[in-house]
Amino acid sequence: MVDGGRLWRRLSELAEIGKQESGGVTRLSFTEEERAAKDLVASYMEEAGLAVREDAAGNLFGRREGKDPDAPTILVGSHVDSVYDGGNFDGPLGVLAGVEVVQTMQEDGVETEHPVEVVAFTDEEGARFSFGMIGSRALAGTLSPEELKHEDANGISIADAMRDYGLDPDRIEEAARQSDSLAAYAELHIEQGRGLENEGLPAGVVTGIAAPVWRRLIFTGETGHAGTTPMVLRHDALAAAAEVMAVIEDEASSTGTSVATVGQLGVEPGGINIIPGRVEISVDLRDIDEGTRDRLEDRILTRVRELCEKRGVGFETEVLQRMVPVSCSETVRGAVRAAYEGLGLEPYDLASGAAHDGMQLVRLCPIGMIFIRSRDGISHNPDEWSSEEDCATGVNVLYSTVLDLAGGT
Amino acid sequence: MVDGGRLWRRLSELAEIGKQESGGVTRLSFTEEERAAKDLVASYMEEAGLAVREDAAGNLFGRREGKDPDAPTILVGSHVDSVYDGGNFDGPLGVLAGVEVVQTMQEDGVETEHPVEVVAFTDEEGARFSFGMIGSRALAGTLSPEELKHEDANGISIADAMRDYGLDPDRIEEAARQSDSLAAYAELHIEQGRGLENEGLPAGVVTGIAAPVWRRLIFTGETGHAGTTPMVLRHDALAAAAEVMAVIEDEASSTGTSVATVGQLGVEPGGINIIPGRVEISVDLRDIDEGTRDRLEDRILTRVRELCEKRGVGFETEVLQRMVPVSCSETVRGAVRAAYEGLGLEPYDLASGAAHDGMQLVRLCPIGMIFIRSRDGISHNPDEWSSEEDCATGVNVLYSTVLDLAGGT
Repeated sequence: MVDGGRLWRRLSELAEIGKQESGGVTRLSFTEEERAAKDLVASYMEEAGLAVREDAAGNLFGRREGKDPDAPTILVGSHVDSVYDGGNFDGPLGVLAGVEVVQTMQEDGVETEHPVEVVAFTDEEGARFSFGMIGSRALAGTLSPEELKHEDANGISIADAMRDYGLDPDRIEEAARQSDSLAAYAELHIEQGRGLENEGLPAGVVTGIAAPVWRRLIFTGETGHAGTTPMVLRHDALAAAAEVMAVIEDEASSTGTSVATVGQLGVEPGGINIIPGRVEISVDLRDIDEGTRDRLEDRILTRVRELCEKRGVGFETEVLQRMVPVSCSETVRGAVRAAYEGLGLEPYDLASGAAHDGMQLVRLCPIGMIFIRSRDGISHNPDEWSSEEDCATGVNVLYSTVLDLAGGT
Repeated sequence: MVDGGRLWRRLSELAEIGKQESGGVTRLSFTEEERAAKDLVASYMEEAGLAVREDAAGNLFGRREGKDPDAPTILVGSHVDSVYDGGNFDGPLGVLAGVEVVQTMQEDGVETEHPVEVVAFTDEEGARFSFGMIGSRALAGTLSPEELKHEDANGISIADAMRDYGLDPDRIEEAARQSDSLAAYAELHIEQGRGLENEGLPAGVVTGIAAPVWRRLIFTGETGHAGTTPMVLRHDALAAAAEVMAVIEDEASSTGTSVATVGQLGVEPGGINIIPGRVEISVDLRDIDEGTRDRLEDRILTRVRELCEKRGVGFETEVLQRMVPVSCSETVRGAVRAAYEGLGLEPYDLASGAAHDGMQLVRLCPIGMIFIRSRDGISHNPDEWSSEEDCATGVNVLYSTVLDLAGGT
């Protein structure tokens, strides 16, 4: 059995990096905070006897060799970056659980056929550049130079941020791994929803991962004086955006399974007495089913075009990213199920509403995930919380899963 | 007759200060741009033979003595600050028209009983601190130390900005003028609406000034993960604000005379995949009739409270400023009407939808305004425009008005 207390202690130590007044954390990619978090994780990896390295994308790896030096790797991990004022479990749990699993193997003298690597991926959340999973995309070899042009709120591109961080964006392709070098990817994560809590269960087997479409919608109206432009003569970009946000909420609510979020809104010129001339909003649309999601997107865009035309407000939109929902592999799901049963738990299947790095790796190897219960389903929030006991249960399930996949004895 | 060409040239010169790529100008209060604009106006005032000074609020004055040194002053002017990316006529026209009027008197050897002063008020627009008419409030003696705490987007208060500009906020009371020192205030301004254009008239007599209420509305919801929080469990602060903006637009449109504008919106935490937890919006509500405006405000706030309660979203609001609509004095209106008739024009009465410094001076002396035609009614926008001919007509009306009020011969 793993050392749940050690894991809990490390979670608390990591939570100090980028800590906010709210009690939450802000650790954006390629910042001092992400650097400090990776350094701390690297020190844990060394404590666990792992060989530590970072790749061309800043992904941090700790490797434990197997008996067969040529066998493909079992990869376990997650990320240590966060959203703005996020919680302490989303990401760190999976990375520290990976370290805990191999450290336990090391301490117990367990040998495996396959090597096992623990990974902390760079920028899963996408909070800084509105473009996520940078590290896992790089690992999968799908990150294009074009995508490194995404900019943060200060106009700094991913490529610039990499340079400031000491990485060479021109060498990003070196982070790509070949399919034959990986045997499987497994990740422990908090559910970030209420499914397990409602069922009274500590953990569950993830069947698949819903995928977001991220869009930017831009409305161009006509600025004017707030006191002298009659309501009927206005082409107010923000009034149009408000109606659009109501449409988005309405359409997403109508499917029963979809979710849609406007998380960002910028208004120009931004004077209290000026009719807004330009508004940009972000939209995050998700569903487990790609068809349902894409039809939702179509319905929204159709209604948005109509209402903007009616208002005499210009409308443009661009896709920031479009991901495909993925299924978890039967191989990994089987190993996770067996691990549950070994602990005397009933395996419970559930889907992931949130996106995860495993989505990017699906082209390289079988993937799977384990979820543990989130209190009140809250995530991306300082109140995000899972109990020490549930965390330990999750890591024990991960341990047995990895042992199974890696051919441990 | 005044020199319309000289006025037009000066308007163009002033438009270079704070010029934006769009062709508009941004001259916020207590900035280098406002300083440069006042310096340029001061040089015109000196060219016109005026005695130049600035008061404790940064208001710029150019004075021409009358025959009776003890007679109260006829004050004419406007402001040189602008909104973000505003036009070249809103404010500058009134200041430069005032200079043109006294310069013409000087050149023509006209003498007046009363002294005439031209003023460029500090911060009429309120674009920087969401609190306007700083200079005219100070002149009227109504600006409180509490009000100097209003902050700009960078957290700099009016008092701090004054200090940086070389003014002492503790001495602001010294800017107050006594009622017996002013005989009347007259201002030439662009209409900023389509009334005169629709009538095919170059200029009109202002009957009264609509007054805005400025409020801040704050919505407090619950942040959460965009992928894992079902629509029905959300308390999305931005979705609530969107519904509120629709209510504001709907209610303001229903009166036929009111206008309402949401010009500012801030969203926290602002991640593309985080449900917004806090949103602030500004609201600018106006009507010529105070009762109509205040009933509109009540209806909006009632509906907002209801919808926020239904959504489980917290709601708070504060008044940033509440002004009372004012009537222009019969004395000044009479002088303006006579001036029109003297030019062979039919006086045309209209109300001002925009607020102006004169509203603050109404407690000191009779006030009045002259409007000239605005192309397409556009204002607070780089496309704001009035023709050289209409500007000259306006200044000629102002000249006769001031001559009349000042007892010129």
